[in-house]
Amino acid sequence: MNFASDNAYGAWPEIVAAIAAAASGAVPSYGDDALTQKIRNRLCDLFACDLAVFPVISGTAANALALATLVPPHGAVVCHREAHIAVDECGAPEFFTHGAKLIALEGEGAKLAPDGVERALAHFQKGFVHHVQPMALSITQSTELGTVYTADETKALSALAHAHGMKVHMDGARFANALCRMGCTPAEATWQAGIDVLSFGATKNGALGAEAVIFFHPEDAGDFEYRRKKAGHLISKMRFVSAQLDAYLTGDRWLVRAGRANALARRLADGLGRIAGVEIAYPVEANAVFAWLPDAIAAGLRAKGAVFYDWGPPQGGRTLVRLVASFATPEEDVDRLLAAANG
Amino acid sequence: MNFASDNAYGAWPEIVAAIAAAASGAVPSYGDDALTQKIRNRLCDLFACDLAVFPVISGTAANALALATLVPPHGAVVCHREAHIAVDECGAPEFFTHGAKLIALEGEGAKLAPDGVERALAHFQKGFVHHVQPMALSITQSTELGTVYTADETKALSALAHAHGMKVHMDGARFANALCRMGCTPAEATWQAGIDVLSFGATKNGALGAEAVIFFHPEDAGDFEYRRKKAGHLISKMRFVSAQLDAYLTGDRWLVRAGRANALARRLADGLGRIAGVEIAYPVEANAVFAWLPDAIAAGLRAKGAVFYDWGPPQGGRTLVRLVASFATPEEDVDRLLAAANG
Amino acid sequence: MNFASDNAYGAWPEIVAAIAAAASGAVPSYGDDALTQKIRNRLCDLFACDLAVFPVISGTAANALALATLVPPHGAVVCHREAHIAVDECGAPEFFTHGAKLIALEGEGAKLAPDGVERALAHFQKGFVHHVQPMALSITQSTELGTVYTADETKALSALAHAHGMKVHMDGARFANALCRMGCTPAEATWQAGIDVLSFGATKNGALGAEAVIFFHPEDAGDFEYRRKKAGHLISKMRFVSAQLDAYLTGDRWLVRAGRANALARRLADGLGRIAGVEIAYPVEANAVFAWLPDAIAAGLRAKGAVFYDWGPPQGGRTLVRLVASFATPEEDVDRLLAAANG
Amino acid sequence: MNFASDNAYGAWPEIVAAIAAAASGAVPSYGDDALTQKIRNRLCDLFACDLAVFPVISGTAANALALATLVPPHGAVVCHREAHIAVDECGAPEFFTHGAKLIALEGEGAKLAPDGVERALAHFQKGFVHHVQPMALSITQSTELGTVYTADETKALSALAHAHGMKVHMDGARFANALCRMGCTPAEATWQAGIDVLSFGATKNGALGAEAVIFFHPEDAGDFEYRRKKAGHLISKMRFVSAQLDAYLTGDRWLVRAGRANALARRLADGLGRIAGVEIAYPVEANAVFAWLPDAIAAGLRAKGAVFYDWGPPQGGRTLVRLVASFATPEEDVDRLLAAANG
Repeated sequence: MNFASDNAYGAWPEIVAAIAAAASGAVPSYGDDALTQKIRNRLCDLFACDLAVFPVISGTAANALALATLVPPHGAVVCHREAHIAVDECGAPEFFTHGAKLIALEGEGAKLAPDGVERALAHFQKGFVHHVQPMALSITQSTELGTVYTADETKALSALAHAHGMKVHMDGARFANALCRMGCTPAEATWQAGIDVLSFGATKNGALGAEAVIFFHPEDAGDFEYRRKKAGHLISKMRFVSAQLDAYLTGDRWLVRAGRANALARRLADGLGRIAGVEIAYPVEANAVFAWLPDAIAAGLRAKGAVFYDWGPPQGGRTLVRLVASFATPEEDVDRLLAAANG
Repeated sequence: MNFASDNAYGAWPEIVAAIAAAASGAVPSYGDDALTQKIRNRLCDLFACDLAVFPVISGTAANALALATLVPPHGAVVCHREAHIAVDECGAPEFFTHGAKLIALEGEGAKLAPDGVERALAHFQKGFVHHVQPMALSITQSTELGTVYTADETKALSALAHAHGMKVHMDGARFANALCRMGCTPAEATWQAGIDVLSFGATKNGALGAEAVIFFHPEDAGDFEYRRKKAGHLISKMRFVSAQLDAYLTGDRWLVRAGRANALARRLADGLGRIAGVEIAYPVEANAVFAWLPDAIAAGLRAKGAVFYDWGPPQGGRTLVRLVASFATPEEDVDRLLAAANG
Repeated sequence: MNFASDNAYGAWPEIVAAIAAAASGAVPSYGDDALTQKIRNRLCDLFACDLAVFPVISGTAANALALATLVPPHGAVVCHREAHIAVDECGAPEFFTHGAKLIALEGEGAKLAPDGVERALAHFQKGFVHHVQPMALSITQSTELGTVYTADETKALSALAHAHGMKVHMDGARFANALCRMGCTPAEATWQAGIDVLSFGATKNGALGAEAVIFFHPEDAGDFEYRRKKAGHLISKMRFVSAQLDAYLTGDRWLVRAGRANALARRLADGLGRIAGVEIAYPVEANAVFAWLPDAIAAGLRAKGAVFYDWGPPQGGRTLVRLVASFATPEEDVDRLLAAANG
Repeated sequence: MNFASDNAYGAWPEIVAAIAAAASGAVPSYGDDALTQKIRNRLCDLFACDLAVFPVISGTAANALALATLVPPHGAVVCHREAHIAVDECGAPEFFTHGAKLIALEGEGAKLAPDGVERALAHFQKGFVHHVQPMALSITQSTELGTVYTADETKALSALAHAHGMKVHMDGARFANALCRMGCTPAEATWQAGIDVLSFGATKNGALGAEAVIFFHPEDAGDFEYRRKKAGHLISKMRFVSAQLDAYLTGDRWLVRAGRANALARRLADGLGRIAGVEIAYPVEANAVFAWLPDAIAAGLRAKGAVFYDWGPPQGGRTLVRLVASFATPEEDVDRLLAAANG
């Protein structure tokens, strides 16, 4: 019963098969191979636009490289204070941007709200040399608390950011989970809603380690390639990253499996919500459930082998916990967990 | 006939199988899994010593993270001017060290020589605040020109570096190829010869993307883990990197296959060396051949489909080229290339 | 009527005279001169302890160099969200630390409070590689809102920081103004209250550009000298910085003049506070007055030539403004401003 | 008899007087004062062109900020291997550029030669992501070995650099000394010879600490202002830096005094050159003399109180030494040194 994270699970058989298929023969290295070119075409089709795409092997690398391309050392990135880039990357954005600042804001359900952003920006004077200059806004989709921005919410934030001369980044480590919820096209969820650059994640939804940084305006990519190389993220045998993305994007498996994870989370939330003393903390819109569990229940679950994270210290006899479902979480684990919680 | 680089070839079937075997089930992420622990034990056994080991996915990351751990921003790294870290990493060591300097020296066959190092160090005054402070010496084994340091040569350089208070790093992207040539134990080739930290490469010899940074004195590892995370190189599904290394180190396949590559390079050199006008430029001690080819021969080879790099501009009707053999280079490609060159 | 900042005023005649006296003859450069040595002795006497001291020419340099010496790139600095280092240095601490993070907290009157710090630290897990590691706490004395920490308040914060393994930095750009208020010895205000490193400012109180970074535990100074050099802050003709500090510290002029500035601020606050519709926003404990002025009054003051900063946008017909008095602010300017405000 | 460096001497009385004159009253800080504006106008007149100018307080800051504005982290700077930026700034250019590389070349008399530059550039493939990209060429005028580029030599290097898409920087820490030698206008020595940005030094020729970074194409200045602020080099009381530059540039004192230093160096060289066993190592074209002194003579000079630097270790009974004359070196010190050398 592992609900610690979607990255606790392995990889799709189809992705493993794609790696095996790509393993023989000699091809150009560093991304000059046919598979990497194919990925670009696939993503152009998927997003229905021209784009520049750069495969990397970790979400932290994707986010930090994307932001460093948009934001100079004297710049700043507006994000939520729960954002992965702010909390869980040990300062990677600061490293890659050579010291730009994250402006971390509050906001319900780990979502930025336009008025909060507007208020925050009022503190930074444009062109005033003593202040860092906000140059990008970054949102996570789905968020770190399992919620999802609607296309309209995204659009409102993007419009605000663009009005301030900022670019908009989406950390899509769980983009598939968000898209399932949104029920719109990838284009509608991103560039049509004003997103300039997307960290398109595949790892959490079943790749070994494969993410694509996608610039919807290729001219924004600037010196991304040099930054990627300099950071040790230009993989020599790039075919193996591209093979993962190719299998990932074949058909609609990526959405079916993310949808399955979302449904499991939904079922988990429904079941837990019915237990006395349990409170579901945030709308369950993707594949993560945040629940206040009475400490006795939490302890009982762990005693029976459930693995999950506390999301903060205990408060008054209960603790906020996070339970994440993945493409590969066994259905019976959800049932077992609910049974254990019930008693 | 692809002799461009050993990284133009794919991956061992055993490594692909190991990835497949590791693909199911839930395990702790970020390296807290059993496979990653197993790798550490394997390497302790292999090198016959205690050590700290950190898997990463690229050689550039391995080198740059290792050097950044040893060398502060006001420090310097002594290396050969042909060194991969100096020439082919787009300044990754400078990025990871936050601006330390590489002191790039001449030296026969891409090998540093103690007297050259001694002369260079004389220019840097210890504790003199205007000068960067040399803190590490880095050698490549096998070198960028296909030569190999003997254990005694390594020892002499290490002793000199240590006498100056410097640590010693070995870029072992082709460590297997070097070890085959040396005919000694991994321990003799490294820590017993004074190496403090090794970038142990598996990618070029048949992994998808797997290298291990090995500190022979675990206390030297310092804040490596934070640096790795901050650089986006702490892979969430670490099991897949460790699985590669595990398969790589099972039995002596890694040496057998590196030895095969060396033998192919040897055969290539012998064959080319017999052709009028061709000159083998450096001792062929690992899996790379550097040869001066008359321009007509080089053009003829390429017309027949041979792929290889020029190593500098043409000079007086001939060009220095590099031909690299790998674990998977077909033997008949060597024969075909020689036939084409002869004809 | 310039109340924009204390740095709008020039320099003491005694400091100019000291520069003139130091201008002739040849002396060792880069701080190996007798005057620089004398400064060290003066400060040892003043603070009644051994210390390491490094003169620099700007407060931003002093703060950023001090913090970079204490905090690695994966570290973090706890400070108030109004702190100069957080707001007004364009990210200098991030630049000098190579990307460490500032954890900016709320707190009454721009002062950190132990419970707020404790709560913030709870979010950062010690040794957890995904989180930046808080390594220093920085307080400003006097604060950016013109308040002053008592020695006991300082002590409580230091004790908390030390208990978490953090060092404590004091941004003393207005240390003289704070000390006048505290009525204690420099030692009591700093190292005896747990301060590890102090940016001792002289510029705002009458030097041309002279600050001293003081490490109360000389072993903490680490590689400060290399950092200072590498940042272009090791002045060749250091005698001229030291001459300023020497004149500054001769007798008790530095305290008398800071006390005068404080008294003017006090008088300003008393006068303004009596005007209908004006509200003094924070306790006036040093040389700055923060007042809510009805917009008509503010406009009237400016029309009559008063210079001062708004501290945020207008709110409901009034605006928070900052008025700073300096060592050289003419007394009659205070009278004229009050007359104008009444008027 | 101090010939250690021109920065061992103090400051002109006129500069001290200018500081005294600037010391009273309130003016805008951070460079928005009238004196700083006046400097800009003075320099426009002097160089007979439009320009962007930024005063700073050290030559290292001037050079490193200028280069960081021209060169991204994946870029490189071509310079001489004796260049101050390469040898004596503890890696400041690498710090400010966030890790760009210096490509340090040989060249007679510390001067770069076009063919050497051309050869070096051939090693860097344009747009090849594995290689750092040369983006600037930096020359020192006068050089670290006391020689001076002619305007034609400068022009040839600039043309070559521009043809490769690189900008050209001149480290003019001793620009006045060079100009005296060249006998041309400031414009002819700089932008008319292809210089894009100049570190215009005043410190070594008699300021306390004042340099001006001059961009001859103001659009090249880019984000210089943010970089300067972030580095702690935006001085609050900028009037005091500008006052130095204003006095420095009044009339032709700056050239008269640099010319005096050059003449003293000339006299020193002539005198030493006549002594048996002494060899003048490089053409004495500015204010520094490099001479091979028999060790007995060097020891004798030091015994009699002469101060100067060795420029490398002794070789066969003699040592290369550097003797620098300044605006304030007493003439009799030259006579006394020659007398002492003659025995």
